[in-house]
Amino acid sequence: MTFSSRIIEIQKKTDSFLCVGLDSDAAKLPAALRSHKNGVLEFNKRIIAATKDLACAYKINFAFYEAMGKEGWSIIEKTRALIPSTILTIADAKRGDIGNTSKQYADAILNGMGFDSITVAPYMGKDSVQPFLEQKGKGVFLLALTSNQGAFDFQYQQIGKRRLFEEVVKTSQSWTTNANLGFVVGATKSSDIHTVRKLAPTIPFLVPGIGAQGGSVEDVIKFGCTSEGFGVLINASRSILYASTGKDFDAAARSEALKLNNEINFFRNTYY
Amino acid sequence: MTFSSRIIEIQKKTDSFLCVGLDSDAAKLPAALRSHKNGVLEFNKRIIAATKDLACAYKINFAFYEAMGKEGWSIIEKTRALIPSTILTIADAKRGDIGNTSKQYADAILNGMGFDSITVAPYMGKDSVQPFLEQKGKGVFLLALTSNQGAFDFQYQQIGKRRLFEEVVKTSQSWTTNANLGFVVGATKSSDIHTVRKLAPTIPFLVPGIGAQGGSVEDVIKFGCTSEGFGVLINASRSILYASTGKDFDAAARSEALKLNNEINFFRNTYY
Repeated sequence: MTFSSRIIEIQKKTDSFLCVGLDSDAAKLPAALRSHKNGVLEFNKRIIAATKDLACAYKINFAFYEAMGKEGWSIIEKTRALIPSTILTIADAKRGDIGNTSKQYADAILNGMGFDSITVAPYMGKDSVQPFLEQKGKGVFLLALTSNQGAFDFQYQQIGKRRLFEEVVKTSQSWTTNANLGFVVGATKSSDIHTVRKLAPTIPFLVPGIGAQGGSVEDVIKFGCTSEGFGVLINASRSILYASTGKDFDAAARSEALKLNNEINFFRNTYY
Repeated sequence: MTFSSRIIEIQKKTDSFLCVGLDSDAAKLPAALRSHKNGVLEFNKRIIAATKDLACAYKINFAFYEAMGKEGWSIIEKTRALIPSTILTIADAKRGDIGNTSKQYADAILNGMGFDSITVAPYMGKDSVQPFLEQKGKGVFLLALTSNQGAFDFQYQQIGKRRLFEEVVKTSQSWTTNANLGFVVGATKSSDIHTVRKLAPTIPFLVPGIGAQGGSVEDVIKFGCTSEGFGVLINASRSILYASTGKDFDAAARSEALKLNNEINFFRNTYY
């Protein structure tokens, strides 16, 4: 089964488009876990337990773990192991380097750590992305249009008739024939989600920017889905993880995930 | 002292433009170290000991260490500690993400691990780079023109009167007033090193692509230096690290480093 088909299958089985972003910040742990020996891991364990029947994917943001030094690397591995194999795992690492270096990252993260997919930066072009695309059964979410303000600096620059992010979307589709390429498309640029969808009719989108960053769920569903109404993974991190700082943080996270899921599914029903 | 001035000072003191790239691959260790308990660390230790009077910088390529799992993280920290404080350290990690995530990477790598500088990808724009530029006394090498074939995919795309890499070089200089920005400019695109130098007269360049990738030392010196004949850090990794697979690998590495240094200094004398 291709990576793209697998995502749709998971989305059908879970009836969810929600990707829970584990941007778990040691400095923001609930008071109850701050003195815990393995606070961040315990936090992730309880967040996953509280949300796993509501999510189609978990995205682990490597930066927050690297900030903890070598211990963080171990927490990534242990967190990865807590995620049921029926749910997609995304290493949000935004790697990308010359071929022999990208190969090291691909081996480490997709094989060694067993992630299903990884986010990759496009600036260095085809041979920097290829080693990730060559990993059998794995997927790549290539940065196309990011959710931050800085997206306007280069991604929106006009190259001939297209803007840079459109050029990335067009060009990179020729880099694989295995249906294992996805794009990161920020929810904060809703009219351009539509632009990207037109350029890439069947490709899965990882969509950050809902919640803390202010993107609209309705727009993402309306403009981002494939014609069959699938293929977007809507990420929420801070709004779920830090829904409460109390002992009930996991129940609050579940409640926030459920609310977002209901909103997503409301618009899925409205538009598809 | 600014980051830029510090580089020139180190280059004057060491009389070297050589950056030794520690892309240390566990699979390529000399036979004598393969059964060593801490083979990669021991390898780095001996490479550093053999080259430290010849180098102005060491660049640690994170991918090769991440491939070793959490142990790799610890080897990065220990290798970092082996480098004399008089020599510049570069974390070749090519990070870059939304602001709050980049901040985590900046804290982890520049503060926590104590690197002097880091390579950063430009695709996500200003707010993805800013947290690195804000670290006091530290420097950023922003990817401008990379040494690989994939550089032609996007970096050479024409945006109005400029190409994307020129746009990155022009725009990013307005992101800091602290003289702590550098650029990665590949040695394999020699006529364009000159283009970048004209756009950025005083900014330090980290130049990969000599050695295994085939760039010309003469062109880098001729076209890449500032008007005073400084400001390029010429990286060599594989050609030095794997100069010999025998017991004498460190002596062979030294001899290779010396040869490259002599070649660099020959052209410095020729042109400045």
